[in-house]
Amino acid sequence: MELSRRQALAGAAALAASPMLTTSAAQASAPLADKQAPSFYRYKIGDVQVNAISDGANTFPLTDAYTSNVKKDAVNAALEKAFLPKDQITTNYAPLVLNIGGKLIAIDTGNGAAAFAASKGNVGQFTANMLAAGIDPKAIDMVVISHFHGDHVNGLLLADGTPAFPNAEVLVPAVEWKFWMDDGEMSRASGDRMPGLFKNNRRIFDAGLKKKVTPYEWGKDVAPGLLAVESIGHTPGHTSYVLSSGKDKLFIQSDVTNSPALFAANPGWHVSFDQDPAQAETTRRKVYDMLVADRMRVQGFHYPFPANGFVEKDGSGYRLVPSPWSPII
Amino acid sequence: MELSRRQALAGAAALAASPMLTTSAAQASAPLADKQAPSFYRYKIGDVQVNAISDGANTFPLTDAYTSNVKKDAVNAALEKAFLPKDQITTNYAPLVLNIGGKLIAIDTGNGAAAFAASKGNVGQFTANMLAAGIDPKAIDMVVISHFHGDHVNGLLLADGTPAFPNAEVLVPAVEWKFWMDDGEMSRASGDRMPGLFKNNRRIFDAGLKKKVTPYEWGKDVAPGLLAVESIGHTPGHTSYVLSSGKDKLFIQSDVTNSPALFAANPGWHVSFDQDPAQAETTRRKVYDMLVADRMRVQGFHYPFPANGFVEKDGSGYRLVPSPWSPII
Repeated sequence: MELSRRQALAGAAALAASPMLTTSAAQASAPLADKQAPSFYRYKIGDVQVNAISDGANTFPLTDAYTSNVKKDAVNAALEKAFLPKDQITTNYAPLVLNIGGKLIAIDTGNGAAAFAASKGNVGQFTANMLAAGIDPKAIDMVVISHFHGDHVNGLLLADGTPAFPNAEVLVPAVEWKFWMDDGEMSRASGDRMPGLFKNNRRIFDAGLKKKVTPYEWGKDVAPGLLAVESIGHTPGHTSYVLSSGKDKLFIQSDVTNSPALFAANPGWHVSFDQDPAQAETTRRKVYDMLVADRMRVQGFHYPFPANGFVEKDGSGYRLVPSPWSPII
Repeated sequence: MELSRRQALAGAAALAASPMLTTSAAQASAPLADKQAPSFYRYKIGDVQVNAISDGANTFPLTDAYTSNVKKDAVNAALEKAFLPKDQITTNYAPLVLNIGGKLIAIDTGNGAAAFAASKGNVGQFTANMLAAGIDPKAIDMVVISHFHGDHVNGLLLADGTPAFPNAEVLVPAVEWKFWMDDGEMSRASGDRMPGLFKNNRRIFDAGLKKKVTPYEWGKDVAPGLLAVESIGHTPGHTSYVLSSGKDKLFIQSDVTNSPALFAANPGWHVSFDQDPAQAETTRRKVYDMLVADRMRVQGFHYPFPANGFVEKDGSGYRLVPSPWSPII
């Protein structure tokens, strides 16, 4: 006993001399956490509360097909300049929920439930992050759709094909609605992408929502202080918004650019998702010149979460200066 | 009845024509949310999980005293260039919790419980955000202190003066420990700031921790892959770290700069908290030149949450390019 007690004391002294060993001996091993922080973020524009809510992110290999007028090598050089990994593209998705005068207004809906399952949770996070933010999808009063691509409209439906926001009125750009619901346009659709987009939009709006939507016009408020503005090119009816409250303004750009590190920095580059790339570039330059001139805060659907900041000129392009995160509301 | 039913139908038709009125009539008013998202964020450096955990932010009026070698007007111009409000400074605080091989290692501790109460929760959020991240302060194995300013050491104690991390070994830079525990240095302290700093450090380390700390040396690992490196000037023993795992590296700068929009952009500006401003500037330029040359990711205690990115040259200064938030772990 005496011997073993001495050995124990000697052992304890040796442990005490080494920081690493003391802690190793004293404590259990902590597993790595397997969940990211819930990706929502709130800020105010005047009296309006903006909730930026991530729908997740999708990473895929970079190919020459990603951009229609530059090669993969140029994109890789821009990725490297932005300290991003080469040979891959990460696309971020950030729908919004605005609280305007007590009404909850979602702008776009993310990739939806099927994509959530297929991506093992990488995308389609809108509902989960909304719930983490304390917002019940049933409490959404209005969903405003910017344009009819899957990452914006697929979240309108649950996995069973019923409405994800059962108490919300769904507002759609009148021009976008007319284009995608036009049987002649659908019959003329060709290529890898367009027929599938038409089919998906019929699934969402015909089968799912039974065409219960309210088309809206550009140049008018879709909700108090939320002005719809034409920003076409990405799609025929692509829409941005100017949110105004008091002296504050926010430009909600939707898809005027995709990744800002690539397409704000290089506004002449055409991402393959632009339906009319030349028109999209014209819109992009006009919008970004306005953002620079007016020093207006901008929220971008494909910016990295929380997906807002200010724009400055940078050589022949533009730089997004992200707004600093405030840990206080 | 017939008349009133007609009136009701007419009313319903009028409501249906106006999106805003339908929703107003149908739904209750949603209050503005009163809590920001929990401000923690995880990423990997090799096998190490880094948890950036906000301690909150503090906003105070800008005065000429904020910087010792430039005037308020120059600072205001830099704030405006960075799209930040003029005439005020917002200081962010971001301690870390690393999971290195199953051991939980905090780096710095934030402003602590008394500051939490005094600021009504604006600062001193480290514990609350740590708990939101699923990390129990009792599970922290080791606390590594970079230097002995209140926003780094005050979180070592609870409001009642007992240790906030009861199962953690506390590691302190040997040079810093020697300086602040030296009675001669304390007796010679003068000015508005230094006597209070000595007094606070005696409260923390004498009264609170009963001097139960382990001093560490520069040029050695304080934990596997966590190398302590000298970065003096801000304080006599101010320490940064290089975290290495596999091929990945992260420079944990501590207070080599305060706000990057001001002091990375203008490395020659001296924030009033630097004890030896000329030495701090020498360190700052050396560290930032290294970060640019090596393209090494950097985590900064006073960067806006989640407080990490990469550094590029920008004219005569440097620009922090924030790492994009990943909504997936």
